[in-house]
Amino acid sequence: MFSAQNVAIIGVGLIGGSIGLALEERRLAGEIVGVGRRQASLDKALARGAIGRATTDIAAGVAGADLVIVATPVAEIVEIVCRALALAPAGALVTDAGSTKAAICDGVAAQSSDSRRFVGSHPLAGDHRTGAEHARANLFADKTVVVTPGASTAERTTSQVEEFWQSLGAHVARMAPNEHDQAVAATSHLPHLVAAALAASTPAKWLALTATGWADTTRVAGGDPTLWTQIFAQNTPDLLAALDRLVATLEQTRESLVAADWTQTEEHLARAKRIRDALGN
Amino acid sequence: MFSAQNVAIIGVGLIGGSIGLALEERRLAGEIVGVGRRQASLDKALARGAIGRATTDIAAGVAGADLVIVATPVAEIVEIVCRALALAPAGALVTDAGSTKAAICDGVAAQSSDSRRFVGSHPLAGDHRTGAEHARANLFADKTVVVTPGASTAERTTSQVEEFWQSLGAHVARMAPNEHDQAVAATSHLPHLVAAALAASTPAKWLALTATGWADTTRVAGGDPTLWTQIFAQNTPDLLAALDRLVATLEQTRESLVAADWTQTEEHLARAKRIRDALGN
Repeated sequence: MFSAQNVAIIGVGLIGGSIGLALEERRLAGEIVGVGRRQASLDKALARGAIGRATTDIAAGVAGADLVIVATPVAEIVEIVCRALALAPAGALVTDAGSTKAAICDGVAAQSSDSRRFVGSHPLAGDHRTGAEHARANLFADKTVVVTPGASTAERTTSQVEEFWQSLGAHVARMAPNEHDQAVAATSHLPHLVAAALAASTPAKWLALTATGWADTTRVAGGDPTLWTQIFAQNTPDLLAALDRLVATLEQTRESLVAADWTQTEEHLARAKRIRDALGN
Repeated sequence: MFSAQNVAIIGVGLIGGSIGLALEERRLAGEIVGVGRRQASLDKALARGAIGRATTDIAAGVAGADLVIVATPVAEIVEIVCRALALAPAGALVTDAGSTKAAICDGVAAQSSDSRRFVGSHPLAGDHRTGAEHARANLFADKTVVVTPGASTAERTTSQVEEFWQSLGAHVARMAPNEHDQAVAATSHLPHLVAAALAASTPAKWLALTATGWADTTRVAGGDPTLWTQIFAQNTPDLLAALDRLVATLEQTRESLVAADWTQTEEHLARAKRIRDALGN
């Protein structure tokens, strides 16, 4: 079972705040320190009880840490992880919570001499809303966290970080960073791209006629455009491959419709339903 | 305010069953008769209290009706509406609840000499689940019902059917059948087609890594393939036009990604977010 004297969370938004709340509720850390750029975000996390102490100074924030979790937008993660590895005590472990992994893991391995103490993480949990005000202690309960050791990651780093996520109620899946990125391009990044395209391509004059189907299918398009652009930028080839697979599937359905081949159309829909139903609600 | 001595509901699934429950809860009808092909469906509706009497004989079911609502799969609606117009009392009004309107309204006008007593309806309310077991009395509360008079529909028919839907708590939008079909191709039929394609194009080995984003974006793909194939068959040109708009939008996003133009990518996502956020959750 994971426990630590001191956990530093850099970036106290939805994910960072929820980690703090979960650690607090389960009494797994002696002290939880929040590190952020904006005092307003830190104040929100303090008010929620997600962190016990707050600082805008990364060196002060990680000075006593056993574990550092970097939960910032993905474009900032490599730099912050490298600084945390350099500034934290020699035995401290560092992980992140970014939605891409290869760019981050490769970046840290290239830029830090301490990368044996870093392993990438991606909790498959979240919300299209952001900020510590939406954080909750059970965000990771029964959710999957992918942990992605790189070539330089020490086995002890990986196993300890896996224990950390398990202690928050999550299931852990260990994968290579590249494999993770291919998978989430299809399961997360493409759905976002498609939801946004569907919302953007709906003529404004007809938006009053949308119902729950449109609302569900476009919901993730409400996510933060800056965060998602960073994610797309770090996983472009895999996202394009997933988009090509989708467009090919749309083209098959289109051909069935043009040919008025209702048997084939129904087979397309029945196959999709089987896949969807297997997931549950 | 709408009220009737006798309402016949032909097809007592989710929509028909919910109409019955709403009429019953609001005490708007003296008798509610359910008409269905399968006794098992009728028994479920009786057990839920959605209908007071059940029959598999359409002539017996509509014999005393002031209002007949045809809530069957769309492929059957024209024939059943024409039979109901012929079999019900001379003053009875008939409407339907199908997701397409032009094929139905044109079909009834062509095949019935009583089409002045028919007006098309489409309640923008539903669920990917089917059957009276999921029916609920508040399904139409604060939802929009599109009412689509054809050239032969009497004004009194339209206004009475509009009052009927309003009495169930719905807002009514009056549109031409063609205009309705163009709109819902974009707001309902395309989301279904895209959700199905997204589910079908996700490689099976990665389905374990799906989270709420994939689940939301693909939810409607759990709908009944037979019902949706009928809807696609009745609205093919409008659906193809909506699909073309989507594919053009996907192509724009693709070009931004290939060019690594993150400013433009973020603008695409920001525009989609504005449209999505305007709807609320």
